[in-house]
Amino acid sequence: MFALDHLKKLQSQLKVDGLKAYLIMTGDPHSSEYAASYFMAERLYFCPFSGDAGQVLITQDKAYLFTDGRFFIQAGKELAGSGFELMKIGEKGVLPLADFIKAEKLYPLGVNQSMISEEFYKTILHKEDKIMDMDYSYMVLERPELSKAKVFALDEKLNTLTRAEKIAAVLNKTYEKEAEANLITTLDDIAWILNLRGNDIADNPVFYAFLYLSKKDGAHLFIDPVKIDFPLDGVTLHPYTQIADFLLDKKNVPTLVDPNRVNARLFNILQKPVAGKNPSYLMKAIKGEKEIANTKEIQIIDGVAMLKFIAFLDDNLNKNLSEYDYAVALEGFRRENKRLFELSFETIAAVGSNAAMMHYGPSEAVHSSVNSTQIELLVDSGGQYYGGTTDTTRTFLIGKPTAEYIHDYTLTLKSVIALSEAIFIDGSCGVTLDILSRSYMWNEGMDYKCGTGHGVGYILNVHEGPNGFRYKLVPERDDSNPLVPGMITTVEPGVYKEGKYGIRIENNLLCVKAFETEMGTFYKFETITMVPIDVKALDLNLLTDKEISWLNAYHQEVFSKLSPLVEGHLLEVLKEKTKPISR
Amino acid sequence: MFALDHLKKLQSQLKVDGLKAYLIMTGDPHSSEYAASYFMAERLYFCPFSGDAGQVLITQDKAYLFTDGRFFIQAGKELAGSGFELMKIGEKGVLPLADFIKAEKLYPLGVNQSMISEEFYKTILHKEDKIMDMDYSYMVLERPELSKAKVFALDEKLNTLTRAEKIAAVLNKTYEKEAEANLITTLDDIAWILNLRGNDIADNPVFYAFLYLSKKDGAHLFIDPVKIDFPLDGVTLHPYTQIADFLLDKKNVPTLVDPNRVNARLFNILQKPVAGKNPSYLMKAIKGEKEIANTKEIQIIDGVAMLKFIAFLDDNLNKNLSEYDYAVALEGFRRENKRLFELSFETIAAVGSNAAMMHYGPSEAVHSSVNSTQIELLVDSGGQYYGGTTDTTRTFLIGKPTAEYIHDYTLTLKSVIALSEAIFIDGSCGVTLDILSRSYMWNEGMDYKCGTGHGVGYILNVHEGPNGFRYKLVPERDDSNPLVPGMITTVEPGVYKEGKYGIRIENNLLCVKAFETEMGTFYKFETITMVPIDVKALDLNLLTDKEISWLNAYHQEVFSKLSPLVEGHLLEVLKEKTKPISR
Repeated sequence: MFALDHLKKLQSQLKVDGLKAYLIMTGDPHSSEYAASYFMAERLYFCPFSGDAGQVLITQDKAYLFTDGRFFIQAGKELAGSGFELMKIGEKGVLPLADFIKAEKLYPLGVNQSMISEEFYKTILHKEDKIMDMDYSYMVLERPELSKAKVFALDEKLNTLTRAEKIAAVLNKTYEKEAEANLITTLDDIAWILNLRGNDIADNPVFYAFLYLSKKDGAHLFIDPVKIDFPLDGVTLHPYTQIADFLLDKKNVPTLVDPNRVNARLFNILQKPVAGKNPSYLMKAIKGEKEIANTKEIQIIDGVAMLKFIAFLDDNLNKNLSEYDYAVALEGFRRENKRLFELSFETIAAVGSNAAMMHYGPSEAVHSSVNSTQIELLVDSGGQYYGGTTDTTRTFLIGKPTAEYIHDYTLTLKSVIALSEAIFIDGSCGVTLDILSRSYMWNEGMDYKCGTGHGVGYILNVHEGPNGFRYKLVPERDDSNPLVPGMITTVEPGVYKEGKYGIRIENNLLCVKAFETEMGTFYKFETITMVPIDVKALDLNLLTDKEISWLNAYHQEVFSKLSPLVEGHLLEVLKEKTKPISR
Repeated sequence: MFALDHLKKLQSQLKVDGLKAYLIMTGDPHSSEYAASYFMAERLYFCPFSGDAGQVLITQDKAYLFTDGRFFIQAGKELAGSGFELMKIGEKGVLPLADFIKAEKLYPLGVNQSMISEEFYKTILHKEDKIMDMDYSYMVLERPELSKAKVFALDEKLNTLTRAEKIAAVLNKTYEKEAEANLITTLDDIAWILNLRGNDIADNPVFYAFLYLSKKDGAHLFIDPVKIDFPLDGVTLHPYTQIADFLLDKKNVPTLVDPNRVNARLFNILQKPVAGKNPSYLMKAIKGEKEIANTKEIQIIDGVAMLKFIAFLDDNLNKNLSEYDYAVALEGFRRENKRLFELSFETIAAVGSNAAMMHYGPSEAVHSSVNSTQIELLVDSGGQYYGGTTDTTRTFLIGKPTAEYIHDYTLTLKSVIALSEAIFIDGSCGVTLDILSRSYMWNEGMDYKCGTGHGVGYILNVHEGPNGFRYKLVPERDDSNPLVPGMITTVEPGVYKEGKYGIRIENNLLCVKAFETEMGTFYKFETITMVPIDVKALDLNLLTDKEISWLNAYHQEVFSKLSPLVEGHLLEVLKEKTKPISR
């Protein structure tokens, strides 16, 4: 944990080492969105900020945290009194980190090159100025171990393609790009290619490893040997720490590598890097036959858990339980099905002004009460199942709604329906479609400060590229790929009013073929989330006939999919929550 | 003009020179969309294709034309019997030109490096294979002169910024990119910066020149001295042909240059190129106060010409005039106003199956009759005025419409209105908004094979970047910039049914600020085209109340803007064509 003394010692060491500044990135050597605590330790030791994103820049006499709008309030509180200056990324007058380093001439600059992506590393390079590959982790006296959790192989009924088929397919694409090998450093890609899963990062069933594929030299996996206790056909195992030495040996092989995802230290070993996306990035986003069938099945299972939760909410509303109690209860309902092995992210159960904060999650220590003095309870949750990954949000009316709330809730549903009903030509991408949802907000001067949706992994990270819905491209979320059948993307527009309420409705959409005409091939979406949508706060006069029909048809499908799995009271609740509505 | 003998001679010469193939690009050394006939001469001499876009690849014993869907029919006819093989870009199984060259190993390859953009040149480079900078123009025995037309300066009331202010602004942006000079090769940028116009390319009031700007060395314009007979304050004049020698002298200066627009020969002289967009590219797209006021004024003038045409069409429909007669008549109405100095493109007046071909234009020799056996007359036209550039399309019902036509015509208007009414947050670009128009077509399995709209120049090229509406980015149409107030973009969706009819309605939209809320800054569009929209083929039951209100409000504005300028019969026609409609 941070102490002022840690910072002071580091600053003294910078003077000794002749560095103007030292940069600490959040993350791990694999460009993971969420990193194991082992890799977070250094930043947490030198800086009091505890959020999931941000870079720390320490000079000989100053200290800065660069973070984005999601974390301004939290960072402001946590940095108070530490001497850290909060640099609000995106605010007027705040230089981006790389520009700041250049403007302040903070060279020689130290950075642990294994913790920074090559692409970002390039942006801080400046003329002849020096950047030193520094590792001050020896100064960090509290650091958890790296996970020793076992890796497990997925049953063959869970994958359309075998490990060998995936390796061959990746190598074919690698050769098309005139490279002879492919260095894969992103954990979800490695897990996908090998049909393996792990438990090294909370809620993300991945494992720390590097993978090197070559037709000539075969497949090489770099992983802590204690984590894998079965042989992998056709894959040579090496210790995790040997990757750099191995690459030194192969440095003259033209190697496909993604500069946005590989760390600078590994990239710079390669003498003939072929910069490009890893073929697996797109391949894993396009779910195969078995992945689709399994996901649809677990969406129904997950729908039953959500239905139990809905019944539980109705039964307990007068008991003044906390948000955290509800999150725990929901996890319990999910765990009743043995195909669940983990949540896909920490459950968000939030009322009122908490729900207005998009990144709020209740904890045992910090939470609010759920009762009818609040308008709504927003629940965003999902499960990792042997069979797929889910991500669903419903916002339940629990108190007395204002006219403004009813309006905004209805708008949110309209926004979900518009994108769910889209028909689009081959070649369209997420940016093409985003406005179908978002225009309902924009027309009234509102906006949600996130994408309308993100790709969903298969028994993998709940956030996945390259098929998100955004109104503009965000380089670090590479969502530029055309949408094609087999991709699963969330649709999750919302209205967030600070201090008042937060509304979000989220479904998972499977891209499928719509039809082919002489003018082109057209795609559409199939909603695969099977959870009743709360209708209590809808203003039916704001909905068109088509929208009401959509909702009734959706509820009819939810009923037909869930009803065979429930009985008694739960069946009654299902009937009630999915009954047709009309003006 | 092409003769088989020309091709044979060139192929013999390739053998003599030891070249496997020779590549002839369409265009000029400035990446112009439309080029002077001087620069088109070589391609027309060696290949029978007469279209505006396409690359010719000639090997020692074969010949290929690579062109896109707009020209398949025309190219098929023109190439017949010539021995040329038509390579249909975008069709399945047809390799893109660069891939074809590599796959067929057509090296050593010859190409005139002044006729190919650096960016495209890089794509044909392949390992150690040789590309020779060849110029076979000496073999071309028929070649028109380069234009000697005089350049003219725009009156100061036509420009918000003076030449000196523009040069200073461009140089400031150049310095921000850490370059010390800016080489500008695109003709519209040069005309815009210098507040000059010319007459070297039909309908595009530009002049052939190169511009080099540097704070240290000043401004240098390379232009045929006979074309300019007045001094340019602060700009040193050089002959057009001296640019390469001049750059050789300055080759070590870090120079900002756009690899997508500069030709490979000039680019490769520079030892320290700073690759990036020219600052003027965006600056000229954002119209200033005077440009906006003037454009609005000439849109009204242009509206009067269109109104005269509408009256003329009603009066002459039973006379069986030709499409060409109508085009000539419309030009006459435009020329009645002395502020017009040129059309902004060749007028398209097309009926039935002609209108279904998006690039059809009638000529004295080739045209169809306009009479009531046809459903519609589509008229796409515009003028270059001292005060702005217009581009308007209206489709008039002239015969008996089918139910399908009425449906499609109504859909097209809905599609125009949806985009015209958009409200969008700062940061949105054309790809964000395109679907607002296009979804009406996609929902029914239709698509128009072009952008929904393009940026419009100011007394300049009618096609301009970077603010077009497209559903996906097209690299050669760089429309990726966020839309900001001051940009003028067309909205021109349509329905094109081969052999049946073509429908297009096109307005020019000015981006303006809508409002600012705590969630962001929002923009919208103001329709500045002032021409009645034909209501005869509308199915009012397909229009929403809001859409009918939009149309009535638009017509009311057209009436109030045009009525002060017309009288008598024309005023009656205006009243009639803008009267409110209702179900």
